[in-house]
Amino acid sequence: MKNKTTASIICLFLFIGSYAQELANFRRAPVISPEIGDKTVTFRISAPQAKLVRLYGSWMRSFDSSLNMNKDTAGLWMVEIPKPSAELYTYNFIVDGLNVNDVNNVFLQRDGTRYLSVLLVPGEITANYFEAGRRGNLRKVWYNSPTIGTTRRMYVYTPYGYETGKDSYPVLYLLHGGGGDEDAWATMGRACQILDNLFEKKLAVPMICVMPNGNPGQEAARTSLIQEKALDRNAPGVANLYINSIVKDIIPYVEKNFRVIAKPEARAVSGLSMGGGHTLSVTNEYPGTFSYICPLSSGASAKYADLDTKLQGIKNAGYKLYWVACGSEDALAYANSKNLDAALTRNGMEHTFFVSGGGHTWANWRIYLNTFAPLLFK
Amino acid sequence: MKNKTTASIICLFLFIGSYAQELANFRRAPVISPEIGDKTVTFRISAPQAKLVRLYGSWMRSFDSSLNMNKDTAGLWMVEIPKPSAELYTYNFIVDGLNVNDVNNVFLQRDGTRYLSVLLVPGEITANYFEAGRRGNLRKVWYNSPTIGTTRRMYVYTPYGYETGKDSYPVLYLLHGGGGDEDAWATMGRACQILDNLFEKKLAVPMICVMPNGNPGQEAARTSLIQEKALDRNAPGVANLYINSIVKDIIPYVEKNFRVIAKPEARAVSGLSMGGGHTLSVTNEYPGTFSYICPLSSGASAKYADLDTKLQGIKNAGYKLYWVACGSEDALAYANSKNLDAALTRNGMEHTFFVSGGGHTWANWRIYLNTFAPLLFK
Repeated sequence: MKNKTTASIICLFLFIGSYAQELANFRRAPVISPEIGDKTVTFRISAPQAKLVRLYGSWMRSFDSSLNMNKDTAGLWMVEIPKPSAELYTYNFIVDGLNVNDVNNVFLQRDGTRYLSVLLVPGEITANYFEAGRRGNLRKVWYNSPTIGTTRRMYVYTPYGYETGKDSYPVLYLLHGGGGDEDAWATMGRACQILDNLFEKKLAVPMICVMPNGNPGQEAARTSLIQEKALDRNAPGVANLYINSIVKDIIPYVEKNFRVIAKPEARAVSGLSMGGGHTLSVTNEYPGTFSYICPLSSGASAKYADLDTKLQGIKNAGYKLYWVACGSEDALAYANSKNLDAALTRNGMEHTFFVSGGGHTWANWRIYLNTFAPLLFK
Repeated sequence: MKNKTTASIICLFLFIGSYAQELANFRRAPVISPEIGDKTVTFRISAPQAKLVRLYGSWMRSFDSSLNMNKDTAGLWMVEIPKPSAELYTYNFIVDGLNVNDVNNVFLQRDGTRYLSVLLVPGEITANYFEAGRRGNLRKVWYNSPTIGTTRRMYVYTPYGYETGKDSYPVLYLLHGGGGDEDAWATMGRACQILDNLFEKKLAVPMICVMPNGNPGQEAARTSLIQEKALDRNAPGVANLYINSIVKDIIPYVEKNFRVIAKPEARAVSGLSMGGGHTLSVTNEYPGTFSYICPLSSGASAKYADLDTKLQGIKNAGYKLYWVACGSEDALAYANSKNLDAALTRNGMEHTFFVSGGGHTWANWRIYLNTFAPLLFK
């Protein structure tokens, strides 16, 4: 009798302990998706009532390339594809015309207002996108921005050893693109993993990485539910509000609250697309503040009627690296990146124009970060 | 000619700046969902090919209560419901039998392996679930756990003013339930917002809140993609691995790396469900370590054949608060929470048994945190 009671008690305890998991399992079949094999990847989704289920993945040329999936008698749809080359892809299912995420894949990332299922194919290009052995920490930090007039949120990555050591570090200010926010580089950009891996492999100088929110009407990403202010980005005073706040609010906050080297030669700035424009603006308007300047996939050089004057300002103030990157198929930014390259040459400024394949994509921005971070602070 | 060129250039720049947003808009109709009105909430989803779309929300009694939605000629499905009472609810659409999230709602939260769309209805109960004016920061911290033998991740919340001040703070160790991980309290639990609001309203003593990962086979949440170790939680040495690591690894890390008051009277521990079991275990096995003990919705009292002896240990070591909470409809934990209440009474230990309505739900766990946090460290 006692044994029976004890057994019942143990059973109850086990039941309670695993309750949430059981509930989760109960609500769906034990489906594995995506399943990454040696040469194939298999996707599965249970949709017994669906007439047609297709798979769209970012490795395809377009939505038109979506693949039909096959249904088994239990209503499980499946498709196996040749394993795409190493990259971080996003994908979704199209169930009778409706885009849905892969409910069996816990690796879901937000890209602006959209959530996308992620397929991370291992290989040389993605080696630094997985967790390193030694990992830095990530802080979600609220700071005061008198320039913009609100409290605002940014992410601050500190490298492995920061908490236990006494060293001061250089800082990379890493800016997101249009539609993104302070979360973008840490999720879609794999910035923490890339930096962790580069430092562990001694390929880059350990640095702090600051990822602010580049939408001055937002205190934080929309997921915070904080009401956004509608700002006309072309109104007088608004256009440079954010880049002013970088120099007047963010840099002072970082240099006060973190062990950093508070000198231009220990400051880098980079950003993608709109953030590449911010990179140009903040270095053009505040020459000498950042010694390392890395605009990515930016078309913003076209904005400056007085680009040569601005670049001369940077040249006179001094800089260590001007590294421009763009994809050769980037219809949005390639022509103007070439213009920036030409302007830098015309003004006798040492620089790199890193032209990759591909277009205006996170695949490229991850590759760029992985490529230029080793060049910083050396 | 010059004006035309300038105009083209400005247009191109505007286009690039808003590119990502445009892309997001292009892929879906401008649908608002959920729309919270004075007395109603309206849900919408575009699914032109669907035959039947239903809405399920956590305010309903069961899946059987799902509501049929109505389709307009453009294929937009809609349903308006009377506004449920103030609470943080999760919901999904059921499109021809398939559960899908609300693609138009950026507020999506992960609960273990599932992602759920969130409806946060404003009101008295949820007042502290929104962002306060003064907000603390959240750190994702990797620490070394010699006890478990890996590096592990936890979240550490620091209250508003921590970075700029010199004060040392008491610490709440806040533990998640089965199926959860270090992210659970900060997302589903709204722990940062609740603490921010309580501190801002001067209803609670500012404290640091440490949210570890209670699955010893995991270095971090599954979203990290780090391979899990399969541990038999009932194998010798495994059952107490995590609670040993709290005392031997986590507390020392926190007390070394943060400005905290390193005394039992400045340590609280609480947890839900499995984490309530961990709360019982860590206080039973390490009496005198925590002065504030708050197990929530835990059935774990049944686990102890020698519960009275263990409680006498806590009584002898001294404590300030023993606060037990459970929902009266919680089939998993209510009977055993009553047993714990009776055992505390039997052993002459001052305590509170806080019985709420409802069951084994995040709604209750948020209410409990909001209720007991003001009792700590006073």
